[in-house]
Amino acid sequence: MSGIEAGRREAWRARYGEHAADLELAWNGVVAGLLAHRSVRAYRPDPLPPGTLETLVAAAQSAPSSSNLQTWSVVAVEDPQAKRRLSEVARGQRHVVEAPLVLVWLADLSRLASLGRAEDRPTEGLDYLETLIVGIVDAALAAQNATVALESLGLGSVYIGALRNDPEAVADILGLPPNVLAVFGHCVGHPDPEQPAAVKPRLAQGVVLHRGRYDPALARAAIAEYDAALRGFQAEQRMPGVGWIQAALERVRGPGSLSGRDRLHAALARRGFGLK
Amino acid sequence: MSGIEAGRREAWRARYGEHAADLELAWNGVVAGLLAHRSVRAYRPDPLPPGTLETLVAAAQSAPSSSNLQTWSVVAVEDPQAKRRLSEVARGQRHVVEAPLVLVWLADLSRLASLGRAEDRPTEGLDYLETLIVGIVDAALAAQNATVALESLGLGSVYIGALRNDPEAVADILGLPPNVLAVFGHCVGHPDPEQPAAVKPRLAQGVVLHRGRYDPALARAAIAEYDAALRGFQAEQRMPGVGWIQAALERVRGPGSLSGRDRLHAALARRGFGLK
Repeated sequence: MSGIEAGRREAWRARYGEHAADLELAWNGVVAGLLAHRSVRAYRPDPLPPGTLETLVAAAQSAPSSSNLQTWSVVAVEDPQAKRRLSEVARGQRHVVEAPLVLVWLADLSRLASLGRAEDRPTEGLDYLETLIVGIVDAALAAQNATVALESLGLGSVYIGALRNDPEAVADILGLPPNVLAVFGHCVGHPDPEQPAAVKPRLAQGVVLHRGRYDPALARAAIAEYDAALRGFQAEQRMPGVGWIQAALERVRGPGSLSGRDRLHAALARRGFGLK
Repeated sequence: MSGIEAGRREAWRARYGEHAADLELAWNGVVAGLLAHRSVRAYRPDPLPPGTLETLVAAAQSAPSSSNLQTWSVVAVEDPQAKRRLSEVARGQRHVVEAPLVLVWLADLSRLASLGRAEDRPTEGLDYLETLIVGIVDAALAAQNATVALESLGLGSVYIGALRNDPEAVADILGLPPNVLAVFGHCVGHPDPEQPAAVKPRLAQGVVLHRGRYDPALARAAIAEYDAALRGFQAEQRMPGVGWIQAALERVRGPGSLSGRDRLHAALARRGFGLK
């Protein structure tokens, strides 16, 4: 068995907890890098090498953008006090303070609103849920390209969806104008080699991949198997062994399990989004 | 000047229409690949190599997922009749028919709804706008990893946001259950070497990157410069030279310029999303 073949099998096993012996996967170094992704929550305090931020933003801007509208922006936060305030919104997640760089990815409809005012042109299209979705998708595509780039440079990161717990506090910390939503934060730094992160197993491909048409049958056996695999992973990582089913269902139980994000619609309306 | 340095300068020039001489960019082959992205709309008819789809889905599943909820799915469409129907939703975009593979990336809250019913647990948290956003972000991050993977394999792709023109027609074509939104389509294939795609210039970094706090001042000079650069690109590509400002403002002019997507909120409500 070649080294590449062994790497391919090991990457598959880490991601799916099963062997890939019968699969003809297309494979190369980029694919190997993507499959090796892990979320990093422990960082060395060292600053990032010069040019890193510019490279991450260039990678982000190279992602596709809906109709080339470029309805996103990013704030790069390095100030300890600002990071501390952001971590409070995120219920005290320490890595938001400890990472040398926190990027905050924004769905930004404000730029086109300003441009419309400057050119004396109507921009009522910004008042629709559709256009917020364009901004959110643009921001997510951009952020993921930055993640791929930073991992290729030996850095690590983790997204912080918890910034949506309180969009108004985040707007205050970062000086965001109306029509801008902080979609998520993004801690970036050198992974602490003393506290290495592991590849998290995912649902089997057959659960998320539908061929030709959507198969609405719930793949209960595959989900039960995944639940067991995740308990194994949690035991290895010395995390509470709650599995997937109970944790996921607890997370979507009701408004009280959304960490304040049940108020997102109201907060967006107050932040100027039309949401029609 | 080394070959790497020349490549770095050329990549920057193609993306921003200016020189990078004074920039200390972090650089490697992965970053070079990301910056070389272009949307491909002309494909050879050849099928994809065996294992390609499985590799793209493994890359997609390796992207971060909010709270590991994995609130996305993907339908792989190869049937010519289904592709034809999807292209009709997308106002006749030919590449939707011509690409050998069309992926449709789904925000999928239906899996957790089914799991809740099977486990007799409440899932009211799915009825909030927040949870739809989780699904949209999950789907976008996954899709972008697939794009990075396929480009590394010498393939090309383009996203088709126009599937949101009529979510109910797409649900009918693909058999989508309630609580599932087709966020966008994704044509995948071998780029036609006779009709090569070009790197599209983007807004200057200073327009989208904010350091420390958001700068609400509209960077009018940089936007005017970008408008001119895009007209140059459009002339080179023998496209109508409309620039950026007029095209972007026309796109968000009002409900009539949204290609039917002004009805997205109503369509989502009918498709079972609570949107609270």
